[in-house]
Amino acid sequence: MKKVINNPENVVNEMVEGFIAAFGNDYKKVHHTNGVVIKNKPNRVAVVTGGGSGHEPLFIGMVGEGLADGAAIGNVFAAPTPNTVLEVTKELDSGQGVLYVYGNYSGDVLNFDMAAELAELEDITTKTVLVNDDVASATKEHAFDRRGIAGDIFAIKIAGAAANDNLTLEEVARITQKAANHTRSIGVALSPSSIPSTGKYTFEIADDEIELGMGIHGEPGVKRTKLQTADELTANMLDYIFDDIELQENDEVCVLVNGLGSTTLMELFIVNRKVVEILNEKGISIYDTDVNSYCTTLEMAGVSITLMKLDDELKNYYDKPAYSPYYFKKGRG
Amino acid sequence: MKKVINNPENVVNEMVEGFIAAFGNDYKKVHHTNGVVIKNKPNRVAVVTGGGSGHEPLFIGMVGEGLADGAAIGNVFAAPTPNTVLEVTKELDSGQGVLYVYGNYSGDVLNFDMAAELAELEDITTKTVLVNDDVASATKEHAFDRRGIAGDIFAIKIAGAAANDNLTLEEVARITQKAANHTRSIGVALSPSSIPSTGKYTFEIADDEIELGMGIHGEPGVKRTKLQTADELTANMLDYIFDDIELQENDEVCVLVNGLGSTTLMELFIVNRKVVEILNEKGISIYDTDVNSYCTTLEMAGVSITLMKLDDELKNYYDKPAYSPYYFKKGRG
Repeated sequence: MKKVINNPENVVNEMVEGFIAAFGNDYKKVHHTNGVVIKNKPNRVAVVTGGGSGHEPLFIGMVGEGLADGAAIGNVFAAPTPNTVLEVTKELDSGQGVLYVYGNYSGDVLNFDMAAELAELEDITTKTVLVNDDVASATKEHAFDRRGIAGDIFAIKIAGAAANDNLTLEEVARITQKAANHTRSIGVALSPSSIPSTGKYTFEIADDEIELGMGIHGEPGVKRTKLQTADELTANMLDYIFDDIELQENDEVCVLVNGLGSTTLMELFIVNRKVVEILNEKGISIYDTDVNSYCTTLEMAGVSITLMKLDDELKNYYDKPAYSPYYFKKGRG
Repeated sequence: MKKVINNPENVVNEMVEGFIAAFGNDYKKVHHTNGVVIKNKPNRVAVVTGGGSGHEPLFIGMVGEGLADGAAIGNVFAAPTPNTVLEVTKELDSGQGVLYVYGNYSGDVLNFDMAAELAELEDITTKTVLVNDDVASATKEHAFDRRGIAGDIFAIKIAGAAANDNLTLEEVARITQKAANHTRSIGVALSPSSIPSTGKYTFEIADDEIELGMGIHGEPGVKRTKLQTADELTANMLDYIFDDIELQENDEVCVLVNGLGSTTLMELFIVNRKVVEILNEKGISIYDTDVNSYCTTLEMAGVSITLMKLDDELKNYYDKPAYSPYYFKKGRG
C-alpha cells in the first residue's frame, strides 16, 4: 500500500507536528512526548483519553471544548508510554483530579495504570473508565474483556460535558461509566490496513468475503461470510447489539455509523438508511445521529455501528456543546 | 473493490435517504429529485451547489448554515439533471435570486445553464460562479478551462457568508467570484477508485507510481512519477501553486489539505506539516487551516492542497460562523 509519508518510523511524531501546525492556536504538544492537550484548560477535573495511533481522528481529534482535555498517543497500534500519559496528566491536573477514558486493551490498561500510580506519587488523583463497547470481542458474561471501538466517541463526549459541569472526579467517572455501560458497537471489515513501518497488511481476506466483528487492529471477529448487501449486513450487525442490550419501544438512543478508513461516506449513509428503518420498526427513538469516520484503522475498509441508550442524565450531558476540528455539536436544551 | 451497498444502480438515491434519515431535522430532500436543501432558508439570496456524486461530503455536506442552502447532485461522477437543479432553485428562491457555485465541468455547466434558463422562465434570476482551482488541469492562459476540485469548499464558504449578509445577488456573486479567483489547488493520486455500477477502476497505476495533477474523476494529470516522500511531494505540489498565483511575504492564506478518500488523516497531517514549513519559510501567513477529506473521489488514495489568498473582504466572510454536519467554523472577529 502506497502511503504519503516520510520515514515510516516517524509517522506519529510528524502527525502530531502536522496537527499542531494546523491547530496550534488551541492545542499544544506536551514536551518530549506524543501527548496533545488543549491550551487554557478550565480549573476543574481533567479528562484524558489515548491509545495507539492509526485510528485518527481518534484520539487527538477528540480533544477539544466539552470533550477530552488531552490525549496520550502511542505508535501505530501501540499503547502510549506511561511517561506520555503521566506528562499529559501533570500538564492538565489543576488539583481536582484526572479521569482516564480509553478503550479496553491490555497494553493501554497496563500503561495508563502505571501512569496513575506515578501520578499518585505526585499527589494527583486519577480514576479510569474503560470503554468496552465491542459486543463481538467477548461474550456478555465476559463483557469486562471486551474491546473498545467507536464507543469511545460517546464516552469522551459525555465525560467532557460532565467535567465542564464542575462535578467531582467521582461524579464525572460515574456518569462516564454509565455512558460506557449504555453503549454497544459491532464492526465489520472488508479489507485490511497496512502498517506504515512494515508495509504489511494486518490480515488476509478473500475478494468476496467480509469479517463480522473484526477488531480495529485486525483482531479476529465472530464470523467470516460472503459479502452481503448493505441492508442484510446492517440487519445482521444490529442483531448482535439487540441480543446484548435491552432496548424497548420508546427507548432513546444515539446512533453512530462509523467508517473504518477507506469506506466512503456514501456507503455509511446507505448503512444509516437501514439502521434508521430498523430502529423505526422497533419503535426505538433516535435522539441524534452521526455518520462519519471517527474511529478508523488506517485505510481498512469497513464500518461499525454504535448505539448509546440514553437516560435523562446522559441526554443532559450529550446535549452540551462540544467542539474540536473533528467533532462538533452545537448543543441543545 | 468490495463496497457496502445494495443495488449499485440505487447508491445515490439511498445515500440521500440515509443523509435525510440522519439529519432530517435540518434538511429535506426535494421531491422526486436528488436535491437536498436546508429547511427554513432565510429570506435572502440563495446559494446552490452541486455536481456528480462520489465526492462526499461534497456536495450535500456543504449545505448548511452560512454555507450553501441546497445541493443538486447527479449519479456517480455525472452532472445533476437540469430538472434537479431547477427544483432546488425553485425550492430556495425567495425573490432575491439564486447563486450557482460549482466546479467547472462541461456536463455540470450544461445542466446548470439549462436550469438557469428554465428558472428565468419562472422569473427567478440566477448567477453562476465556476470554481476552477485545479492548476494542473490547464495552463494559466487557459485558466477558464480548469477544473474545480477542493477549492469548491472555500468558494461555498464565502458564498454562504456573503448571502447571509443580505447582499444583492450581484454582490454575492462578485465576492464568491473573487474567492474562486484567489484559490488554487493541485492534487496527486496514488490509487484509483472503482465505480459502484461497474466495479471498474477509473485508471491503472503501478504499485510504485503516483500521478501529479490527476483529476477527481481520474482525468489525466501533468506528471506520473515514482512514489516520493511526503516532504518531496508536498514541495513539488506547492511549486505548481506558487508558479500560478503571486504570493508575497506577509500575504495571508487559508490552507486546505484534503484527502481524496482512503488516504488517512495521519498522512494528511504529515503533508500539512510540510505545507506549514514551506509557507513559513516564504513568510506567507497562514490565517486558518483545514485538514480533512472534504472533496473525495470515492475510495481513491491521494491528497490535494488548496490555498486561498485572502484580502480584507474575503477574510471578513471567511470569519463568519458556518455549520453543517461535515464542515464547521465557530467564527471569529
